[in-house]
Amino acid sequence: MPTNRQILLDNRPQGEANVGNFKLVSTETPALQDGQVLVRHHYLSLDPYMRGRMNESKSYAQPQPLGEVMIGGTVGEVVESRHPKFAVGDPVVGMGGWQEYSVVDASQPGALRKVDTTHVPLSHYLGAVGMPGVTAWYGLVKIIDPKAGDTVVVSAAAGAVGSAYGALAKARGCRVVGIAGGKDKCDYVVNELGFDACIDYKAHKDAYSLAKALKQACPNGIDGYFENVGGMVLDAVLLRMNAHGRIAVCGMIAGYDGQPLPLANPALILVNRLKIQGFIVSEHMEIWPEALKELGTLVGTGKLRPRESVAQGIEAAPEAFLGLLKGKNFGKQLVKL
Amino acid sequence: MPTNRQILLDNRPQGEANVGNFKLVSTETPALQDGQVLVRHHYLSLDPYMRGRMNESKSYAQPQPLGEVMIGGTVGEVVESRHPKFAVGDPVVGMGGWQEYSVVDASQPGALRKVDTTHVPLSHYLGAVGMPGVTAWYGLVKIIDPKAGDTVVVSAAAGAVGSAYGALAKARGCRVVGIAGGKDKCDYVVNELGFDACIDYKAHKDAYSLAKALKQACPNGIDGYFENVGGMVLDAVLLRMNAHGRIAVCGMIAGYDGQPLPLANPALILVNRLKIQGFIVSEHMEIWPEALKELGTLVGTGKLRPRESVAQGIEAAPEAFLGLLKGKNFGKQLVKL
Repeated sequence: MPTNRQILLDNRPQGEANVGNFKLVSTETPALQDGQVLVRHHYLSLDPYMRGRMNESKSYAQPQPLGEVMIGGTVGEVVESRHPKFAVGDPVVGMGGWQEYSVVDASQPGALRKVDTTHVPLSHYLGAVGMPGVTAWYGLVKIIDPKAGDTVVVSAAAGAVGSAYGALAKARGCRVVGIAGGKDKCDYVVNELGFDACIDYKAHKDAYSLAKALKQACPNGIDGYFENVGGMVLDAVLLRMNAHGRIAVCGMIAGYDGQPLPLANPALILVNRLKIQGFIVSEHMEIWPEALKELGTLVGTGKLRPRESVAQGIEAAPEAFLGLLKGKNFGKQLVKL
Repeated sequence: MPTNRQILLDNRPQGEANVGNFKLVSTETPALQDGQVLVRHHYLSLDPYMRGRMNESKSYAQPQPLGEVMIGGTVGEVVESRHPKFAVGDPVVGMGGWQEYSVVDASQPGALRKVDTTHVPLSHYLGAVGMPGVTAWYGLVKIIDPKAGDTVVVSAAAGAVGSAYGALAKARGCRVVGIAGGKDKCDYVVNELGFDACIDYKAHKDAYSLAKALKQACPNGIDGYFENVGGMVLDAVLLRMNAHGRIAVCGMIAGYDGQPLPLANPALILVNRLKIQGFIVSEHMEIWPEALKELGTLVGTGKLRPRESVAQGIEAAPEAFLGLLKGKNFGKQLVKL
């Protein structure tokens, strides 16, 4: 049985999360029982939602239990199988957590899925052709539901969700405008991801200044917005939403660390008859096949070429995760195991 | 030609609205042209939306022009007609404005509608069986879309919209909880309107205290909320919304006078995957017939017995309107002309 290095949540953050909240341990992987599969993880996915799980407080999911392996998506290969549908060498995607190996009850629905790596690199099943891509798809297609010619905006545009959103929106004939932190990210969003424009929110001191920049980038106003960050960015976008605009709320990363960030002028919801809808993509499993098919095609045909930030080794995961929360990553944040 | 007393918007409010913003004038009603009808107004409707129109700033409608008759719904009778479909004595509802008479181009769609006063008193066509009732219907049926057993809440529960909302929600098997200002209103909401409970927001110093009271009144949480006021009440309700709850935003009267009132914790939209939708009922004319039919039946069968606050004479309109904005009215605020 191979030795398995794991990262546990050791204690909950007081304010900002830090490396001391995590603990690296080594264990032996247990012997398999009937129906189980041993997976060697190649990549671990790091995602903003994990920060919410670190808190004790009520959220859409149970808090991450203390002393247990941190939750997380993984891709890898089957190295041992006592399940008839999985063979050694199969490339698979699952929720293996922050560890090098996982033992999976493979008959549990959705626990483990074989993937095809002919046209799509394995790691992309954690990004563009995985949960972040489907998240972008759900928010854009099911909540924003844009018409050709609509202007749609996304924050954290250089990230895994943002880059998929851009490709999906362009495929629907939209004008797509990103918001990201820093000139490098904005250049990447426009030049490599093919957005029509991208605004560096760090160049603006308040929502009014950012709203002015949005006015230039969105001369016809904003019809749809995909929210990943909250705070000042949301306030600015609200000032530029068109009547009957739609806002999909997927993340409010700006407020994860401490006191809730207020929304400055909720009366704009009424003034512009907006629809604002929060969602988590795991509650909408019925749309995954359709979404994954479109995303796989976009990647396979080169219309979506997502970048990845890759940290090396399980021991690098906490630092890489904290960097993600600060926007240090460029595209999908992974850990190579 | 009869003399027509009118109230004009004389100047825009700086902060709180006051009687000095209005001006009473007298004019002669002009001679009718073909297709026109002269209506003698019996009642003028006063509604919170009018406050928004008094401002210059961007809103969902054009601002009320200065020096013109204030916009407003009216019921009355035809006193002269040069339109084949209207005869002297017909009871009618229209948007005659703050004046005693109006000359209406009766062939313009929706400008004037004959009503049946056999089972429904004329004045109710400005309230329960008029725009406020349809507003309640749209928010409840089209946005909140409750199932039997759901808990639904409305602010300004003793008002025209709130009372219709209560009857419509009870007809759908919901638990209905009101929020209103003062013990008298709350007693009325429970004892006369048949709500399951009503909370006096004035008895609470902040959103947390109000949220505690909501927890008692809504032991299973809140599935749907109809927002008329904003501010602290909205913050409190957000703390008690169930996952996948729906909020129909119809008014934010608390913020009409000055600086925008922030929303304390927008991250709850994500945590509870809420849908928040603003609307104005005049953009949904297609649902009016169905809504009016149900509301007329509720009133005709005594299941909805809305109260009215009636001010006497056109000259009393400004004072009555300012009182409405402060919640001094009890039920639908009218002016008897």
